[in-house]
Amino acid sequence: MDRITIEDLRFPECPIRNILARFGDKWSLLVLFLLHRNGTMRFKNLQHMLPDISSKMLTVTLRTLEEDGFIVRKVYPEVPPHVEYTLTPRAESLLPHIDRLIDWAVEHQEEILKDRKAALKR
Amino acid sequence: MDRITIEDLRFPECPIRNILARFGDKWSLLVLFLLHRNGTMRFKNLQHMLPDISSKMLTVTLRTLEEDGFIVRKVYPEVPPHVEYTLTPRAESLLPHIDRLIDWAVEHQEEILKDRKAALKR
Repeated sequence: MDRITIEDLRFPECPIRNILARFGDKWSLLVLFLLHRNGTMRFKNLQHMLPDISSKMLTVTLRTLEEDGFIVRKVYPEVPPHVEYTLTPRAESLLPHIDRLIDWAVEHQEEILKDRKAALKR
Repeated sequence: MDRITIEDLRFPECPIRNILARFGDKWSLLVLFLLHRNGTMRFKNLQHMLPDISSKMLTVTLRTLEEDGFIVRKVYPEVPPHVEYTLTPRAESLLPHIDRLIDWAVEHQEEILKDRKAALKR
């Protein structure tokens, strides 16, 4: 997960460094995608849909998305705690662009994997 | 830089894990953006435009983009070595989608930075 570093402060106007790179990692994209597809989800649901993420990494990912205003976190005072996550209108305005990227990736995945395999053999 | 891990092999059809997360980091996006804007560039030019990247990180970033068929590397047998990088048609077909993301980020950057600052104070 890219956190903001002192280096980034040298480029305060850079939208790639400041904005895009914060959600360009696989976990952030997957969480945004799952919430977009499924609507409101509990922490446990997300964990279930992402069997290869650690609790800690999911927590950090959700916190970063919350800090940047992409998701809202709602806590119900129950035992055990019941926590839900929902996309904000800001995230909803971003998701169509991510959908286009996913479409592009699906379309090109086979040829990219083939090229990558060949490159790794060289 | 996200390299392919054994975990990813459990999700061989996932375009986010296999494709998007490989170029979603800030360095890959910045290199793609710079080559898109400037055309063919030498290693030294890229380094000059990215004063906060290490030589090693730039090398790894370029190699990953090359493995996935986004850039071609051309070496001229000179002393000192002259190495040039150019986007492939595959990358050119991706760049409009990245441009849309950058436009979105520019448009929302101010409000996101404001929200992030407020969140980090809490």
